[in-house]
Amino acid sequence: MKVGIVGATGYGGVELYRILSNHPHVDECILYSSSEMDVPYSNSFPHLTEISDHILKNIDVEEIKSNVTVLFLATPPGVSRTLSPQFIDSDVKIIDLSGDLRLKNKSEYEEWYKRPCVDENVLEKAVYGLPEIYKADITKAKLLANPGCFPTATILGLAPVVENKLVNEQSIIVDAKTGVSGAGRNASQTTHFSEVNENVKIYKVHEHQHIPEIEQALHTLNDAITCISFNTHLMPMTRGIMATIYASLTDTYSTEKLLDLYKDFYADSPFVRIRKQNEFPSTKEVYGSNFCDIGLKVDERTGRVTIVSVIDNLMKGAAGQAIQNFNLMNGFEETTGLYHAPIYP
Amino acid sequence: MKVGIVGATGYGGVELYRILSNHPHVDECILYSSSEMDVPYSNSFPHLTEISDHILKNIDVEEIKSNVTVLFLATPPGVSRTLSPQFIDSDVKIIDLSGDLRLKNKSEYEEWYKRPCVDENVLEKAVYGLPEIYKADITKAKLLANPGCFPTATILGLAPVVENKLVNEQSIIVDAKTGVSGAGRNASQTTHFSEVNENVKIYKVHEHQHIPEIEQALHTLNDAITCISFNTHLMPMTRGIMATIYASLTDTYSTEKLLDLYKDFYADSPFVRIRKQNEFPSTKEVYGSNFCDIGLKVDERTGRVTIVSVIDNLMKGAAGQAIQNFNLMNGFEETTGLYHAPIYP
Amino acid sequence: MKVGIVGATGYGGVELYRILSNHPHVDECILYSSSEMDVPYSNSFPHLTEISDHILKNIDVEEIKSNVTVLFLATPPGVSRTLSPQFIDSDVKIIDLSGDLRLKNKSEYEEWYKRPCVDENVLEKAVYGLPEIYKADITKAKLLANPGCFPTATILGLAPVVENKLVNEQSIIVDAKTGVSGAGRNASQTTHFSEVNENVKIYKVHEHQHIPEIEQALHTLNDAITCISFNTHLMPMTRGIMATIYASLTDTYSTEKLLDLYKDFYADSPFVRIRKQNEFPSTKEVYGSNFCDIGLKVDERTGRVTIVSVIDNLMKGAAGQAIQNFNLMNGFEETTGLYHAPIYP
Amino acid sequence: MKVGIVGATGYGGVELYRILSNHPHVDECILYSSSEMDVPYSNSFPHLTEISDHILKNIDVEEIKSNVTVLFLATPPGVSRTLSPQFIDSDVKIIDLSGDLRLKNKSEYEEWYKRPCVDENVLEKAVYGLPEIYKADITKAKLLANPGCFPTATILGLAPVVENKLVNEQSIIVDAKTGVSGAGRNASQTTHFSEVNENVKIYKVHEHQHIPEIEQALHTLNDAITCISFNTHLMPMTRGIMATIYASLTDTYSTEKLLDLYKDFYADSPFVRIRKQNEFPSTKEVYGSNFCDIGLKVDERTGRVTIVSVIDNLMKGAAGQAIQNFNLMNGFEETTGLYHAPIYP
Repeated sequence: MKVGIVGATGYGGVELYRILSNHPHVDECILYSSSEMDVPYSNSFPHLTEISDHILKNIDVEEIKSNVTVLFLATPPGVSRTLSPQFIDSDVKIIDLSGDLRLKNKSEYEEWYKRPCVDENVLEKAVYGLPEIYKADITKAKLLANPGCFPTATILGLAPVVENKLVNEQSIIVDAKTGVSGAGRNASQTTHFSEVNENVKIYKVHEHQHIPEIEQALHTLNDAITCISFNTHLMPMTRGIMATIYASLTDTYSTEKLLDLYKDFYADSPFVRIRKQNEFPSTKEVYGSNFCDIGLKVDERTGRVTIVSVIDNLMKGAAGQAIQNFNLMNGFEETTGLYHAPIYP
Repeated sequence: MKVGIVGATGYGGVELYRILSNHPHVDECILYSSSEMDVPYSNSFPHLTEISDHILKNIDVEEIKSNVTVLFLATPPGVSRTLSPQFIDSDVKIIDLSGDLRLKNKSEYEEWYKRPCVDENVLEKAVYGLPEIYKADITKAKLLANPGCFPTATILGLAPVVENKLVNEQSIIVDAKTGVSGAGRNASQTTHFSEVNENVKIYKVHEHQHIPEIEQALHTLNDAITCISFNTHLMPMTRGIMATIYASLTDTYSTEKLLDLYKDFYADSPFVRIRKQNEFPSTKEVYGSNFCDIGLKVDERTGRVTIVSVIDNLMKGAAGQAIQNFNLMNGFEETTGLYHAPIYP
Repeated sequence: MKVGIVGATGYGGVELYRILSNHPHVDECILYSSSEMDVPYSNSFPHLTEISDHILKNIDVEEIKSNVTVLFLATPPGVSRTLSPQFIDSDVKIIDLSGDLRLKNKSEYEEWYKRPCVDENVLEKAVYGLPEIYKADITKAKLLANPGCFPTATILGLAPVVENKLVNEQSIIVDAKTGVSGAGRNASQTTHFSEVNENVKIYKVHEHQHIPEIEQALHTLNDAITCISFNTHLMPMTRGIMATIYASLTDTYSTEKLLDLYKDFYADSPFVRIRKQNEFPSTKEVYGSNFCDIGLKVDERTGRVTIVSVIDNLMKGAAGQAIQNFNLMNGFEETTGLYHAPIYP
Repeated sequence: MKVGIVGATGYGGVELYRILSNHPHVDECILYSSSEMDVPYSNSFPHLTEISDHILKNIDVEEIKSNVTVLFLATPPGVSRTLSPQFIDSDVKIIDLSGDLRLKNKSEYEEWYKRPCVDENVLEKAVYGLPEIYKADITKAKLLANPGCFPTATILGLAPVVENKLVNEQSIIVDAKTGVSGAGRNASQTTHFSEVNENVKIYKVHEHQHIPEIEQALHTLNDAITCISFNTHLMPMTRGIMATIYASLTDTYSTEKLLDLYKDFYADSPFVRIRKQNEFPSTKEVYGSNFCDIGLKVDERTGRVTIVSVIDNLMKGAAGQAIQNFNLMNGFEETTGLYHAPIYP
């Protein structure tokens, strides 16, 4: 199978390439970029010297339609809005890693993203690609909205207690921490080494565009959930997200009972690992892998549960999950080309 | 004035030394250590070459009584329990940086610290040294319990809304992040570079010994507060603490109104800086200084406020605050020797 | 094929496991440890939750002989000295990642390692496993001494100019920089996060035990080489080694000509990548991979060449190279299970 | 005394401000910026909240002449070329932290900096401000060229052996390592966190503009020195420079003898600290301070000496040294406002 990657010079694009270039069902990756073209890919990424002899190509919709079976869009916000509709009536399956197709409510997108949204008829066709929860829909999808990094960690951390109505729907607070690679490859003062190193910084307080995405998904699991508290912090590290989640339990449950619930809920999910009692995952323990690791503990004093959910933001939070969806959309085993141990240390 | 530092070979001790050696009212620092003695201090800390010609001395209570006016205890838990009572009837003022004298309830100490507590008559004499709130008591103190690093950031972040009963007393959740230096200088796998670097790790979930200290202080401000949710995370950095605090507001308050309240509350507190609207402090912005910087924002959607409070854990979280207390206990200007700009970047 | 790993709880051991557990010719890994036994491997390494269900086993020579075809020793110095001789007359092939078998001169080992050396008859049988130079011997080896991390980067960086006598034999200076993981998993003040972070430190000045190993190899390529200058620096990072090499050219050579020489020299070496003119490798560009990347430039002003050689110390500097040797010793394709793109960023 | 800082929004500028705002002989700092004006300084640097109430001013030569006694230029290359000549005939003393006035040879500047040089009559008036070597000239200077960061570490590391002709003049090799703050505050891909973190990168191989500056100074100490080998590496840290220096000894000297020579040479230099035998400085051991720490060791095997010289690039490598020069130029004690212990850890 031939696949295409639009936005190959970004971090999401190069992570897609790393996995797809070793995927047993992918015969060829074609790499597209709007910023650079007709130059070797290894100019942008010298770590691919001798591994990739690809030349970056200009984005040409007709050429893509005739050459590519599945197209990954690893593009900044706004690009997919104009690009993905052009493939709606073609045979090309689209996997969009940007946020453009994730929200079902057009005005909500425009409010949080502060830019125009794609047409509603396109939104309707887009399937939200969180395989652990929407696997059936994904296997039939032609247009897939790959989840955001924070939503992936948060929704997987909350789904079992939310769906089973074990937590107060108004009590959910998510304190997220992320590595810097989530901000992409473009330089800015926010990601300047001397400003980030030896520093922790909160950003987009109450305003992160992933908030409505999380709420939309939680609402499908329990329609009493309408809004959550959510904040994100930039950590002095490259990869990794931790969502520390706080919620009030509706009744007295033991840590053990909740852990059993989580293990059952994710019994068929090869990439979710529930930690044992009194063990909590750290971000490095999923580095470079597609795992989402979850630990939790009930606090009897406060009646709350603390849930810790970690992912590699470029893998389960972006490229890895996109390929998990790619596998499901094409009838391959869900773990094909993806089931590797994290790199440690 | 002659002062003594017990535990000079630890990080708290050397930070005390850095400031006291430039303090205009300190004529001499005498350095004590139980692990090393009769060796030059600069053997332990080569960065003090040519700055310090001190020889580490064994801890001798009688020698200390005859030579020292104020004694700082920068010691591991348990040491002050046996050491500080020996000075109760002497003229030596004690400033204890450990947690041994902070909790007024002996059994609570033993439950959370899992070690025996000092006698209650000693506890009674100890003044809790958070100057922004207990200044009057501190000026008269002879035995001072210097607050913990997390309690300092958390209590200062919460005091104005708690005392004014603007937040629901059962709703307080504190998600704290800390640099590694808080764990001290002794090597362990937890603080091993290859395990900490490029990693975020939660630890002591619901069990941190600073929890009762925070609750005790908040309870004095508002006795309806009995328990909070509190978790701590280890960050890949050396210095700095951020407490991200979530609480439900009892009514509709604007961000602006709350910021004004904070500015008033801390109007006479030279080391607390309230940030302007839509500006949040990062840990590096207080690096090496004694400041506690606070930013906050109301979330109208959820009715909660997010409060961000940052300190340098070795300064306002330990040595700096101890010297602020030292100044107050001795009638010096509160900022003497302490009011320096943070090191940035 | 069944393989065994002794020292599975160290960083070298777990990196071997990461690759061998996905190696197409390895049916089973048996994991041995002297420090822990009869406990799950994932207790030591929670990142292997659900990936490994191995139980660590005690080291039992007879059990190993009857179960294992190839045994990897990822052990501290001194262990192989006693362990490897016990397999000399068995069918088990040994790949020793420690330094115990690398030096052919017993007294040199004892001088630099400051511990007793294995018997000379064992040393004689050991093949030095740098595949790019000694491939023919390695394919026939039964007892293999896997090279050290610094020697790998240095020897590969120098071999073409040394063998072709293009540099003055007395002029070689190697300034090496390494991540912290090379020091292993045991905690020490040297590897304590707060001491390493935001710090660069030189260590073992003129005394690193890898010096005679480098000199021995260079001497086989050009017997006029007897000694080099070599120093190592600890960097605030986990993985990666850079050797910056300086040497005086014996004549006027252009950068281009030298690069061509390197490309020819390594034409059959899939894991050595020669960078193009004016491009130099950084350590992150080989992160998690088995590549050794080399860049160089002639300085006409001084008549010297600067050669930059980078590896991932746990891969090409340890586990990856061991598996490259394993492939060659067993008649597999040299790149089997090893040819992956580096993880970037 | 009133002083001015041009380029206050850069890292050099803000480090000048940190020290000058506590300097006992400075009554007022006036801050100039070409990029921002009429806005509070704390907008650019929130860590100065409540410390600085300065408003950034536009650069107005006449206003400066009438208000300022000493003007610091912490500006990018090229600015001083046009700015400093305008003060030549005024009473304002200029301390230029850029490289514009350091090289005495105009064509050399233009070759290495690849930009036009200031007029030679200005160059002639400029005094090179390395106080440990040129103190007498500095005390009389009106126009001062503050040394570069790499030259400071390198020249101080070499001066005693070079002046005393103890090393072969053609044998000097300097392998330098630097933190990222030396690149300034402007964002670029080179200083992007995700590209720098967990990475070591060589740059400007044989082409660093500090090379002629080092050679010029060494030549004044020993005119047989014409060229050196010099390379720089970017480290994953914010502050700190280490120069690891290699040179062949002209005769057999012991480490002890050389250390004695260094102690004598720097006996009157309060900011140079010579380490004892077998102790080498690390960059963190001078963090935030104006010290240059030097350690060295003779390698009997190769006849070379390894000299390790470390500084904080923003202090002794820029702002700290500028203020040391400021003290000397104004007849103040050399250490005024500057002699503080490094921040550790």
